[in-house]
Amino acid sequence: MWKPDRKNDSPLYMQIADYIEQQIISGEFPPGSLLPSERKLAEKLDVNRSTIVLAYSELRALGLIESRPGSGTRVNSTKWGTIPKQSIQWDQYLQPANAVSPKGLQKRVRDALQQDASLINLASGELNSDLSPIDEINQFMKIQKYQEMLGYNDPLGSIKLRSAVANHLQSENQIQTSNASILITSGTQQALYLICHYLLSPGDTIAIEDPSFYYSMPMFEDAGLRVFRMKLEQTDQQGETSLSSDLHQALKKNRVKMIFLNPNFQNPTGAVMSEDQKLDLLLLTNDLGIPIVEVDPFSLTAFQSKCPQPLKSSDSIGSVIYIGSLSKTVAAGLRIGWLVAPRLIVEKLAEARQLIDYGQSSLPQQVAAEFISSEHFQAHLGRLRLHLLYKRDLLIEALQLHLSELVTFEIPEGGLHLWCELHFKVSETKLLDEAIKQGVVFMPGSVFGKETGHLRFTFARPDTDKIAIGVQRFAKALHTVLQTP
Amino acid sequence: MWKPDRKNDSPLYMQIADYIEQQIISGEFPPGSLLPSERKLAEKLDVNRSTIVLAYSELRALGLIESRPGSGTRVNSTKWGTIPKQSIQWDQYLQPANAVSPKGLQKRVRDALQQDASLINLASGELNSDLSPIDEINQFMKIQKYQEMLGYNDPLGSIKLRSAVANHLQSENQIQTSNASILITSGTQQALYLICHYLLSPGDTIAIEDPSFYYSMPMFEDAGLRVFRMKLEQTDQQGETSLSSDLHQALKKNRVKMIFLNPNFQNPTGAVMSEDQKLDLLLLTNDLGIPIVEVDPFSLTAFQSKCPQPLKSSDSIGSVIYIGSLSKTVAAGLRIGWLVAPRLIVEKLAEARQLIDYGQSSLPQQVAAEFISSEHFQAHLGRLRLHLLYKRDLLIEALQLHLSELVTFEIPEGGLHLWCELHFKVSETKLLDEAIKQGVVFMPGSVFGKETGHLRFTFARPDTDKIAIGVQRFAKALHTVLQTP
Repeated sequence: MWKPDRKNDSPLYMQIADYIEQQIISGEFPPGSLLPSERKLAEKLDVNRSTIVLAYSELRALGLIESRPGSGTRVNSTKWGTIPKQSIQWDQYLQPANAVSPKGLQKRVRDALQQDASLINLASGELNSDLSPIDEINQFMKIQKYQEMLGYNDPLGSIKLRSAVANHLQSENQIQTSNASILITSGTQQALYLICHYLLSPGDTIAIEDPSFYYSMPMFEDAGLRVFRMKLEQTDQQGETSLSSDLHQALKKNRVKMIFLNPNFQNPTGAVMSEDQKLDLLLLTNDLGIPIVEVDPFSLTAFQSKCPQPLKSSDSIGSVIYIGSLSKTVAAGLRIGWLVAPRLIVEKLAEARQLIDYGQSSLPQQVAAEFISSEHFQAHLGRLRLHLLYKRDLLIEALQLHLSELVTFEIPEGGLHLWCELHFKVSETKLLDEAIKQGVVFMPGSVFGKETGHLRFTFARPDTDKIAIGVQRFAKALHTVLQTP
Repeated sequence: MWKPDRKNDSPLYMQIADYIEQQIISGEFPPGSLLPSERKLAEKLDVNRSTIVLAYSELRALGLIESRPGSGTRVNSTKWGTIPKQSIQWDQYLQPANAVSPKGLQKRVRDALQQDASLINLASGELNSDLSPIDEINQFMKIQKYQEMLGYNDPLGSIKLRSAVANHLQSENQIQTSNASILITSGTQQALYLICHYLLSPGDTIAIEDPSFYYSMPMFEDAGLRVFRMKLEQTDQQGETSLSSDLHQALKKNRVKMIFLNPNFQNPTGAVMSEDQKLDLLLLTNDLGIPIVEVDPFSLTAFQSKCPQPLKSSDSIGSVIYIGSLSKTVAAGLRIGWLVAPRLIVEKLAEARQLIDYGQSSLPQQVAAEFISSEHFQAHLGRLRLHLLYKRDLLIEALQLHLSELVTFEIPEGGLHLWCELHFKVSETKLLDEAIKQGVVFMPGSVFGKETGHLRFTFARPDTDKIAIGVQRFAKALHTVLQTP
């Protein structure tokens, strides 16, 4: 951390002004950005506030910064490149900036959470940290020896972890596979990135369900893919649901190259595709020759029932690319996921991964391999299911108490989320803003591709004792918005 | 691991034939691929060899496999999709396969190393594992508590690691920066990937030196970038070197958007750009408004002299994107690197990184933060320099003993590599093949963009007692090739 030099001949305020000028010129503080308040900067640099007042006035005189009452001191929003000495036109390297970041309401939720840590978080699709097996992982860290693990890895990932995953898939998910068909990835995210960028080409069309968490990802836009919204089922006159007969036609007509699904405890709806639906879908897509990408992070969370089987377990001809992960059952920060696919696909994606990051760090791979091979893993999953069930029930109770006339929902039997339909038409933006004002965040339905009128609550994320208060605050926000014309 | 079921009514050989058929159909064994030998498979499945003979003959009868004397048993190389039931045309997803993997002689080296672990490795640009501080890292693993670290990370990387890196850069590299201008990456590789894909666009031209390790990366081709070969210096009539006066013109004419450099102990040449050259280059590129990407993994390895300063330490206007890493000084398997750039650039690349893999695993970040903040880091660097110097001298001694009439080289004062010029014209392919036959690998000069007649030896990688033998084997190979017409 830079501090002014009291032994220097130049006065402190000049040193500080020079330093900030330097930071502006070098792009540390880009045009329009907010500088620290005088008080805060004085504290940080260990000088009197009056020194900062002088330094800022110097910079104002140079036209580098401007202060307005109530909006603080900002770098002059002169356009890029016109600041003296700033010769690199960085803005040309920042276009297009929008393809890679979340937008709209999703960004609004993220920014709100960053600004205010006290918000009750019913929005982020992740486990509360108290649901991660921290003690067990610490234990494994202690007994490890990292002797062999510090060089560049096997492109597919550590053989020990791949063997552990192969056993895990066989015993837990009824998926028969082998080490050579498994690629270790940095979570589900990287597996999807690899598929979108290295198996598909810009202009290709993919199909996803509506609603689906896939809509929340800038991934597809970044890869230049077209998205076809797919309606998987329809109800016939006898009230039975079946795969839409139009689906075959629609997939063909739109030249769909790949179908992205999340069949078990879908995010956001919590729905589980029935065995019949799964088999019908495999038949249909095999007939068309379209591979399926199955993301399956939730199947092992089944609260009370048997864990639902992945599509992949019925895939006899290798038409499903299966993606699993520890992020939603163990710890997202480990960044351990896996992809199962025909060998040539795995090999190509492994080469692409070498290009991107030269493989996963060896430490989390070793810890993950030990953990999922140990008895602790089953014990942890058992505990996790009980806790998730308990938190789900707290959420349902609170919804029934505060919102019974206003929302409808299906009770999820696994996963981290509950999907609500609102009985009244409200503006999502207004509702979210009001909720933030009340101290709670949720994820609006449009983030998942649904028109307004829906939203997702995540019961896994908030502290247990905050769920009811969060719902109460949300109810207050909803009432306020409904009463405002 | 699948095994036939002895209680099943179906005979063992039929179960095995069915299982292999399934694996062929699902793409586990793609067309043309080699099946395990009868003996090996019998061992693996715990059956008699005659059972496998029967199973294979069954598959041959179905036309699924074919055996030829001397070349083993292979899956019938029928084209994709014509194997019964195989409905997904995976080949259409495998194009273009070549843009992501190393090619030519580099691939030849890699394949040779994979096939024969006993080869003396003077080729791979990495530390021998005995140069990594394994005991210290194990120690840090033991005392860690991962309480807070298991959720999704800050997009820029752990604040603790970024602070440690900022201090490190200030004290070791004379680079002034702050947490907010640092992005933690999965090594140098990911930093370069992010720049190529998210700051540049397909069709853009970049400039690199000739020779340079950048030529060995499929990175630029994958990102659709054009590469301009740059000659940095020329010698004037007084024998003084200076930046080529044509360079300004050439960079402008070719609309170069970014310059990629490795100024300290360059890979492969080991050269250090002089202070004057560095300042001249900064002036020139700032005048043109072209940013520089500086990769600097080796500067702290300076064997005896003071560590050379990075370009970035003289960069007063933020025109250098600086990339550092622990891969060449601590351990490649940690996958810890960092990128320093103006704040807006760092933020954009951080968003892109979220898209690619949702950030680095928390475990290696925490271990790296502890290690580089500790006294052990300096002690380790001191030891590393001594060992590298010792290994360099062993290499030089052996070269003088066995090859003094045949090669010329500059003595590197840091880094992992030594760059040789051959006095005679030989075919690189023949030389490499002969060297592999003799039991040693090196990296041919064309991998680094140089016409034939050069090669790189890495002294950091082989075991200390193998260096002399490796050179002896190489000398034998070179003599053999020179004597062959």
